[in-house]
Amino acid sequence: MQDEGETPGAMEIARDRMMLVHRLKALRRAGARVGFVPTMGALHDGHVSLVDIAASKADFTIASIFVNPRQFAPGEDLATYPRTEDEDCVMLEKAGCNLVYLPAVRDIYRDDCATGLLMGGPAAGLESLARPHFFGGVALVVLKLLNQIQPDFAVFGEKDYQQLLVVRALVRDLDLPVEILAGPTLRAADGLALSSRNAFLSVDERARAPALHEALLHAASMIAGGTMPQEAEDSARARILAAGFSGVDYVAVRRAGDLSGFGDKGVDAPARILAAARLGGVRLIDNVAASALRLPPAPLTH
Amino acid sequence: MQDEGETPGAMEIARDRMMLVHRLKALRRAGARVGFVPTMGALHDGHVSLVDIAASKADFTIASIFVNPRQFAPGEDLATYPRTEDEDCVMLEKAGCNLVYLPAVRDIYRDDCATGLLMGGPAAGLESLARPHFFGGVALVVLKLLNQIQPDFAVFGEKDYQQLLVVRALVRDLDLPVEILAGPTLRAADGLALSSRNAFLSVDERARAPALHEALLHAASMIAGGTMPQEAEDSARARILAAGFSGVDYVAVRRAGDLSGFGDKGVDAPARILAAARLGGVRLIDNVAASALRLPPAPLTH
Repeated sequence: MQDEGETPGAMEIARDRMMLVHRLKALRRAGARVGFVPTMGALHDGHVSLVDIAASKADFTIASIFVNPRQFAPGEDLATYPRTEDEDCVMLEKAGCNLVYLPAVRDIYRDDCATGLLMGGPAAGLESLARPHFFGGVALVVLKLLNQIQPDFAVFGEKDYQQLLVVRALVRDLDLPVEILAGPTLRAADGLALSSRNAFLSVDERARAPALHEALLHAASMIAGGTMPQEAEDSARARILAAGFSGVDYVAVRRAGDLSGFGDKGVDAPARILAAARLGGVRLIDNVAASALRLPPAPLTH
Repeated sequence: MQDEGETPGAMEIARDRMMLVHRLKALRRAGARVGFVPTMGALHDGHVSLVDIAASKADFTIASIFVNPRQFAPGEDLATYPRTEDEDCVMLEKAGCNLVYLPAVRDIYRDDCATGLLMGGPAAGLESLARPHFFGGVALVVLKLLNQIQPDFAVFGEKDYQQLLVVRALVRDLDLPVEILAGPTLRAADGLALSSRNAFLSVDERARAPALHEALLHAASMIAGGTMPQEAEDSARARILAAGFSGVDYVAVRRAGDLSGFGDKGVDAPARILAAARLGGVRLIDNVAASALRLPPAPLTH
């Protein structure tokens, strides 16, 4: 039965945990299969595609918007992270989201929180080099949201590939009763991966930004041709800098399954090439799949 | 419907996670309220009392026996920790346990486990002084067992009071959908708290062991009379050593709610007095409740 005044099919909004818990009880009694897409808002078509995936597989789709203070370090862009709640809700409803959870910070973090997560494995290196607190913060908020919502599955984007693997490790290591699905990266026509932070690019920077993806694709073609990881990484780094990026935090060819590095034998398993680079004041990340089509050449003997 | 050959009411045994998951699905479909008592085996009447509590409140009671390698440091008594599985199962069945989960180490820990827990708050100090890895290990295995079993509630003994508060912090901080119940400490007629490690005491040591509880009770009476924490702690320490204990790791008067210390104003809230002491090669812990019946005396002005 619809509540009075509620439009049939209209997206519900839970502004605090109590509202959420109340709604979830009814859903579980009804045996609904619940899909979940956590976001930090400032939604774009990439997020919408994740909600589409969830809605296609769930009886009831929940999205959350929560800018998690624990995954920002002092000096990072927590205060200026874009917040567009009204527009976000319109996009979510159009995408088939049934309920959006908009918790306050107090719904997520108590002042006396005594529990932290230490993530190793796929969390080591890459994003953690520049942002050592990042994956601990991500894992904690994801774990809390999963426990609050108890969805049957949750969808994460491949755009944040390392985060996807960290979440999968978290779920596997803690035996969480939830399935993690991956949504492919959505890109602008020129190849730039959709990201909330793209809004901060100037016109000139926006024109240069696709070079990140192009450099990764070029590195992937080198790997496919048998080039060793280090050479492909160096080439991509040079291309990114040549396009006018102000710095490259990393370019790394890693095993797609666990982000461990390849040894001297070169790329002998499915790979992912991941990069983070700075364009003016904006830090962009991207990644592409790669695999060696043929064995790497035998080492030269001079 | 009973499986063929199964005695009605007989306790089921799940020797691996798949068996457990299979059984849990049926329980959840039936809407059973599930109670859980995690143990490391070597059961005594203290454990039985926790199973009694669970059985009185649950439709289906599960106990686990798992000697968690992650909560033992190198040099601690993992290898010699008493293992009495057959006797344990007899005791559990008598106590009304419906299923015992006996996981192998591989059912709990994958080799590539990348997730660790950092516990602060009530985990700081006391047991952590001598055993810095202890509560991270306890919290990880408790979290994994709670996620594997998804009980409606779990019962922990007050004997391990700090552990009880750490588990409560874990559940609260991670928003776990489970209720944590506490069972009071069971004691021998002479006051010694029941513990699996009591089995290692010699006849002479067993005769001296109740002095630990006596010293804590005496400290509680001092606190009730207005004595300041430090003086009560010193008195208890002296009594324990006088009884022939070989060392006292700590005696501490702490707030019962979060184990924080009392300041200069003395005991102004419900307290817990906790101690760990060594008797020959055996480390015993115990704790008692305490409260100040009257305000502490005003400081003397000489």
